[in-house]
Amino acid sequence: MEHLEGRQSVYAALVARQRRFEAILIKHGTHAETVAEILAEAESQGIPVRYVEGKELDARAHGGSHGGVLALASPKPRTKVDTLMEIIGKLTEPPLLLLLEGVDDARNLGFAIRTAEAVGVHAMLIKKHLWDFDPVEISRPSSGAYERLPLVQIDDVTPLKSLQARGLKLIGCLANVKRTLYETDLTGPTILAIGGEKRGLSGAVRDICDGFLTIPTRGGASSLSLSHSSAIVMAEAMRQRLGR
Amino acid sequence: MEHLEGRQSVYAALVARQRRFEAILIKHGTHAETVAEILAEAESQGIPVRYVEGKELDARAHGGSHGGVLALASPKPRTKVDTLMEIIGKLTEPPLLLLLEGVDDARNLGFAIRTAEAVGVHAMLIKKHLWDFDPVEISRPSSGAYERLPLVQIDDVTPLKSLQARGLKLIGCLANVKRTLYETDLTGPTILAIGGEKRGLSGAVRDICDGFLTIPTRGGASSLSLSHSSAIVMAEAMRQRLGR
Repeated sequence: MEHLEGRQSVYAALVARQRRFEAILIKHGTHAETVAEILAEAESQGIPVRYVEGKELDARAHGGSHGGVLALASPKPRTKVDTLMEIIGKLTEPPLLLLLEGVDDARNLGFAIRTAEAVGVHAMLIKKHLWDFDPVEISRPSSGAYERLPLVQIDDVTPLKSLQARGLKLIGCLANVKRTLYETDLTGPTILAIGGEKRGLSGAVRDICDGFLTIPTRGGASSLSLSHSSAIVMAEAMRQRLGR
Repeated sequence: MEHLEGRQSVYAALVARQRRFEAILIKHGTHAETVAEILAEAESQGIPVRYVEGKELDARAHGGSHGGVLALASPKPRTKVDTLMEIIGKLTEPPLLLLLEGVDDARNLGFAIRTAEAVGVHAMLIKKHLWDFDPVEISRPSSGAYERLPLVQIDDVTPLKSLQARGLKLIGCLANVKRTLYETDLTGPTILAIGGEKRGLSGAVRDICDGFLTIPTRGGASSLSLSHSSAIVMAEAMRQRLGR
């Protein structure tokens, strides 16, 4: 069982219905209105709600930001590649996927997931070791998006090749290429691949990319962070798609 | 005196020459090559370098990420409005400024500063209470940009009105307006105003805005974080300016 902490994460997970809930713990004395939506969802899904002392929540929680609500639930399931193919098959618009390699911390991953959902990315592909992050630390900055967005675990480039065989173009973001994102057509079926801040895209992914793009930055300026690079590239894809 | 922690922040501050340095502390046993640039800058500026025990650095530092380098220096000076006007007067392109209201934490402010510099924002305007953040916590995620980008403290809307009188348009970012950033001309002299995640733009700023724009997001999705919203809007301004 995993923990889910805070009203927003717990409610998003209840509505997404991807996890199996064992119980929801609410601090004694919590105002009923502030948890009304959670109580209604829990009741309709037959999930037990227990009122507990603040001390018990504090002892179980990873931080002080649970706000009186904590859930015990199975981990968020990783979306299988087969399921991803089904999701893509049902879309009424060209798929837009984001591949993240080498995120430095859980918080940046959470923010990247939040932005990806907001700008219309259909699923995120994440390298295996990124699943070692504390899910509570990913979930909190994602503002509930962690519960809703399909996240696919990628162990090697095989799934990327399968997606390419389905017509998706794999576009790698690199610092030192000529073509900018603004000169790159992102309206077709696309996987945007963004590397870690320290090491960039892996050789294995670069070797199979269909093209590369760069975000132009000012001379002398530092590079962009991973989650902000990906926000800018995903938003450009959205802009191009809105203009179709 | 303030602390500056980590090689990147210390080197960026030395090169920016905005602070007065009292001393640079380096941990005994640090490889000379890894601090060669810092030593060269310190020597050319006549700043004393002291080699100290790791324990002393740990005791002075705010976290474990100083990496063996710490500087004692005056705070980064806030850019005065008069100086901002001079900076604007010398630009060979239309000024692009970012006004941030209500940042929730130092880390997000640091990331916003980093992105602003990278996409070509000329200065940032920040509300008074934001200066209460720990500078070390702003500086670290800014990747040195905190030392280089002019930061102007705004106590009320008077400086904004002065900038408007100089021909800058104040454009507020709001969730519920019709016009998107893609339909808004950002190529002229512009101040982009972005509110806090919880309260949005203040009434005082809204009242004097010359226009508003929104970032379109997917229905049902959560909102964007402040630093990611500002990244997307600033990058769109850059895109439009590159296309001129």
